[in-house]
Amino acid sequence: MRTQVAIIGAGPAGLLLSHLLARGGVDSVVVETRSQEYVASRIRAGILEQSSVDLLTEVGLGDRLRAEGHEHRGIYLNWPGERHHLDFVDLTGRTVWVYGQTEVQKDLVTAGTAQVFYSVTETTLHDVETSRPHVTYVDSDGRPQRLDADAIAGCDGSFGPSRNAVPSETFERTYPYSWLGILADVAPSTDELIYSWHPNGFALHSMRSPTVSRLYLQVPNGTDPASWSDDRIWEELALRLGHGHDGWKLTPGPITDKSVLPMRSYVQTPMRHGRLFLAGDAAHIVPPTGAKGLNLAIADVSLLATALIAQFKENDPSLADSYSDDALRRVWRCTHFSWWMTTMLHTGGDPFDAQLQLSQLRWVTSSSAGATGLAENYAGLPIGF
Amino acid sequence: MRTQVAIIGAGPAGLLLSHLLARGGVDSVVVETRSQEYVASRIRAGILEQSSVDLLTEVGLGDRLRAEGHEHRGIYLNWPGERHHLDFVDLTGRTVWVYGQTEVQKDLVTAGTAQVFYSVTETTLHDVETSRPHVTYVDSDGRPQRLDADAIAGCDGSFGPSRNAVPSETFERTYPYSWLGILADVAPSTDELIYSWHPNGFALHSMRSPTVSRLYLQVPNGTDPASWSDDRIWEELALRLGHGHDGWKLTPGPITDKSVLPMRSYVQTPMRHGRLFLAGDAAHIVPPTGAKGLNLAIADVSLLATALIAQFKENDPSLADSYSDDALRRVWRCTHFSWWMTTMLHTGGDPFDAQLQLSQLRWVTSSSAGATGLAENYAGLPIGF
Repeated sequence: MRTQVAIIGAGPAGLLLSHLLARGGVDSVVVETRSQEYVASRIRAGILEQSSVDLLTEVGLGDRLRAEGHEHRGIYLNWPGERHHLDFVDLTGRTVWVYGQTEVQKDLVTAGTAQVFYSVTETTLHDVETSRPHVTYVDSDGRPQRLDADAIAGCDGSFGPSRNAVPSETFERTYPYSWLGILADVAPSTDELIYSWHPNGFALHSMRSPTVSRLYLQVPNGTDPASWSDDRIWEELALRLGHGHDGWKLTPGPITDKSVLPMRSYVQTPMRHGRLFLAGDAAHIVPPTGAKGLNLAIADVSLLATALIAQFKENDPSLADSYSDDALRRVWRCTHFSWWMTTMLHTGGDPFDAQLQLSQLRWVTSSSAGATGLAENYAGLPIGF
Repeated sequence: MRTQVAIIGAGPAGLLLSHLLARGGVDSVVVETRSQEYVASRIRAGILEQSSVDLLTEVGLGDRLRAEGHEHRGIYLNWPGERHHLDFVDLTGRTVWVYGQTEVQKDLVTAGTAQVFYSVTETTLHDVETSRPHVTYVDSDGRPQRLDADAIAGCDGSFGPSRNAVPSETFERTYPYSWLGILADVAPSTDELIYSWHPNGFALHSMRSPTVSRLYLQVPNGTDPASWSDDRIWEELALRLGHGHDGWKLTPGPITDKSVLPMRSYVQTPMRHGRLFLAGDAAHIVPPTGAKGLNLAIADVSLLATALIAQFKENDPSLADSYSDDALRRVWRCTHFSWWMTTMLHTGGDPFDAQLQLSQLRWVTSSSAGATGLAENYAGLPIGF
């Protein structure tokens, strides 16, 4: 089989890339090791930046998002005795949208632009340093296949084969805490997300819909989710999120999912080797604080689609040549911001650090420059900034 | 002997407090363990915030400062291949002044407001929890003395007896690097300070006057200044400060002083116990990055003078009661800022940290919010913010 761009991975990065390429007249084929059902049901990020929403809308993927998603003007920052709202619209003119990665994935599948082969095995990249790279794999019927292409896009996350095919330098930070995340069948107790600092550890009140809440607690690494009873989770969430302060109440409800998420920062540079281009989690991982992961993947494939269309339709390789540098500017900005939000809000037991965190929270919520700095990073810089 | 306020320490904090109290009609007496000559010749901080300059001017201590000091609109941030100017006037409408602590000290001595006993020994604080505290000491002639007061102000730095007389909680951070500082008889090679990030370590080009430069190099803790030859110092400064980039040149000259400064953050809370009030280094130490130490001491004594004048002239204890909380808001803001500047600019060998630092430097020099955040902290918030 032959195509212009072989895409490894059918998550939102791979499917969106295929969709964008198709709009620019460039053919692609996607191969994915997981089943379509598995990919569709993964619970992941839930916040889209303004620029992600703008891009999805521009390419015809924004209808359900705008009908069913929820636009938020900002976030709350909370710590014992204090709750402050940061209004991103006032500060930067931009908003964010609550719309799960699962829903973005559904919209991409519904659009049906991408030709995807699911449940493949033994995906292997070949000759990426030449102008005739190819991918071999075994299809879901057990038949060996070969996919010839002009370029390969590695959208296969941190466990896929693409990232190992790029000789690169890696930068990494593992954090000494994790998130215990729950989904609950209860209306959110807040209109916008609450990020909360507490001596016991960070807590976050997020949501998926008017009837489904998503909440998180900072827990030690290695925590077994089963070791936290539902009652204990709601009790600790109430304490850390400020239940009772100024009459605010956290309403508990049935917990339908409970899991522990590790926190890691990871960047691999460069993001290109020959005709192989990495995008999304294949090249970088951010901790979930600040909700950058999905947005960064969308920004990557937006740059990459533009670069590959210029290369294959106009024979102009300049954007492909600068893709890694261009993408990494945003990657490092978001990596820094995610690290900054994470280290400002998670407690580690050092009393000096705790006072620095509180001083920073007071500054961010009282200084216009401080608030704008957080807002412009959270609501997101324009793609290609 | 009897006075209204017994001040321990005749550095800039103690002398300025005495000056401010006198203007408000409150008597004070200052005792100092060092000789007048020693205190006058200590080489310390060299940058005054706008609010410090405004206060000194308002109380008649600004004439020589405005004649001989140098007003700076901002600073340069430098890293390999890049130099950016942050213009505090454009960003915040505020400036900073180059005017050494030694000069402020001279102006305070020249003003002659304070009655000071130098070279005393065995300074001891008594009955600070009562309304009749007193200080005992042995004067420079070897005679025991007793100074009765209505309040005691501890302006005696981190080695004086005052801070130990306050039951308190302490917050501390020792940094894994020091500054090798030099004074050189050579015109500064820059019009405003250059803060430079370099893989080898931080460097700072500061100045004292049109003919005297002050420069610093990050060095490991425990470095012996004698182990750095003058040639090696100039060579390393040239490398780290970007000699040769865009035609910029660092001009070396005769080094007249060479010393190693440790880097420490320290805060003691509360800053009051009974009738004893701490101000300046007695309650808090910041690392020199960001030049907050002297300015914080000036802000403390400004608040304290106002509080003590209200207490003794109008019998209103409310400001004295809130002094510790009021002062600590600024102390923690400046402690956070000093820590932030320090950790953004000093290298520790971790490649992930280095990339975070560079990403932050790029953001601070390209985002208006980022630049304004640095500028408003560096040029300083209004006293009593």
